[in-house]
Amino acid sequence: MPLSDYLRSAFDALRFPSRPEGLYEPISYALDGGGKRLRPTLLLMAFGLYDDHLDTALPAALAIETYHNHTLLHDDLMDHASMRRGRPTVHVKWDANTAILSGDTMLIEAFDFLLQGSWPRKDEMLRLFTRSMREICEGQQYDVNFEQRTDVTEAEYIEMIRLKTSVLLGCAAKLGALAADAPEADADALYRFAEQVGLAFQLQDDYLDVYGDPAVFGKRIGGDIVCGKKTFLLINALQRADAPTRSRLTALLADTAIDEATKIAEVTAIYDSLGIPTLTLEAIDSYYAAALRELDALSLPAHKAEPLRQFAGSLLARRK
Amino acid sequence: MPLSDYLRSAFDALRFPSRPEGLYEPISYALDGGGKRLRPTLLLMAFGLYDDHLDTALPAALAIETYHNHTLLHDDLMDHASMRRGRPTVHVKWDANTAILSGDTMLIEAFDFLLQGSWPRKDEMLRLFTRSMREICEGQQYDVNFEQRTDVTEAEYIEMIRLKTSVLLGCAAKLGALAADAPEADADALYRFAEQVGLAFQLQDDYLDVYGDPAVFGKRIGGDIVCGKKTFLLINALQRADAPTRSRLTALLADTAIDEATKIAEVTAIYDSLGIPTLTLEAIDSYYAAALRELDALSLPAHKAEPLRQFAGSLLARRK
Repeated sequence: MPLSDYLRSAFDALRFPSRPEGLYEPISYALDGGGKRLRPTLLLMAFGLYDDHLDTALPAALAIETYHNHTLLHDDLMDHASMRRGRPTVHVKWDANTAILSGDTMLIEAFDFLLQGSWPRKDEMLRLFTRSMREICEGQQYDVNFEQRTDVTEAEYIEMIRLKTSVLLGCAAKLGALAADAPEADADALYRFAEQVGLAFQLQDDYLDVYGDPAVFGKRIGGDIVCGKKTFLLINALQRADAPTRSRLTALLADTAIDEATKIAEVTAIYDSLGIPTLTLEAIDSYYAAALRELDALSLPAHKAEPLRQFAGSLLARRK
Repeated sequence: MPLSDYLRSAFDALRFPSRPEGLYEPISYALDGGGKRLRPTLLLMAFGLYDDHLDTALPAALAIETYHNHTLLHDDLMDHASMRRGRPTVHVKWDANTAILSGDTMLIEAFDFLLQGSWPRKDEMLRLFTRSMREICEGQQYDVNFEQRTDVTEAEYIEMIRLKTSVLLGCAAKLGALAADAPEADADALYRFAEQVGLAFQLQDDYLDVYGDPAVFGKRIGGDIVCGKKTFLLINALQRADAPTRSRLTALLADTAIDEATKIAEVTAIYDSLGIPTLTLEAIDSYYAAALRELDALSLPAHKAEPLRQFAGSLLARRK
């Protein structure tokens, strides 16, 4: 059975209590939303390198996806986002207090899933999980703080997206390895593999927001430019531009009267003139290559890691 | 050293990271607020019945107080409460998003504290902790749901306050016992002891809100009546009243035009006529007595539990 079907069955089989009304229904709603389930997929793939009995790893897979959806519930509330996976967000469909309390409960359920497993290195897994969760909160806070700053460096930005996005992918891969009692060096290599894939994926998201094909990307092109979001592209453009261009770029981003299409076109033209697209694609390729090198270092026959190579490739193949 | 000093030193010695700005400062602020630290005190007292090395239990004491303050942060936000322990609440001093994210981080820190301990029955302690946390979320949700209902029974109310308040006291006492590797029967008796104390304490709070001495109670007398809060007193009054009195009581509570002092005086007069104060004091005494019986059943010389008897007595001695 493909991993996606295995996970769908597992999530479909989850049953939360029916009472009290209003507490568990939003949790089922959030988890039923589906999504790509990248993190539990990655966890099971890493586990599968060393052990075929996927059911052993399942509690950890449920934990990481439930935790991830907890962050989405609270992030959507903090960002006032009204839609998620084509459906109203929990704080819109219910209310803010429901999103807070059901979101808190999901964090508790995530821990509880992890406690249900019986693994020789369970304590190490629990510590990795809490450390990762704390780092993700830190990443979210840096992201908030960056909104108020105009001097964010590339290094700071990479560290922010590492914390906010990559750490949970790394955690997923390493949890899978630890659940299978893999060699410590392999578990760490798999963490770094997923971490690098996560960085590349986030930079690709920044790139596609400007240079993607709207029919493929699924989001409006130029959304980050309209919001003045500090992306890898903008941070590097501000750093590379000469003084007049930097002034023009800053003025454009601050201009709320300008037509949005004009703003997007002008900012994109500046990016083009500064070589930002090439720079970004090179950075993506660099993180992607670093990720693949981690797989080469595993204590396994090379072909075993082929599914993980394909996983990374499928995430990072998009240039449009 | 008295337990209160021991705990104050322990909380004073806590150091959270300084970065990212805005994430950990509200956590320190919340934990620095002090309060009575009932839950870690109870945990250390239960532990101290079986083991003198308090430092062994400290991570669990820090965990339970950090978790409790997490619930206060999120509850204050959900209730739009502006003050806590004489200071502005976190969502007032910072903002709602800070209360959400720093509150989430406190829940993670609470787990992390518990993971730092090395106890033979750590897995059992972690499971008890997550089960209790889930039950507390359920209690909070029942409390919210009851606001919309007029037919809440005494049994439903007792179950709600058990979940919302008592479970964490029970959890604290049992965690202390488990950290000391106490006999299972003792750990369960200590859970029930704290649970019964919690029920008595909540009913006392309901009682004092109407019949307390404002100089001693610390809150405005009649606050629950003004808010129309479904307390033990109101639920029993609605159940005991004849039809005309019930109509009068319901009308009074719904009347927002009436002078508050008049409303409080009239509702209190109805409570008096129905024997509600005596009924409530009897219920408090009954839970208190049940709590003390649990201590008598411990596998220890009777004098050992004296500090816990005094703890319960000091919480429940107030009749004004």
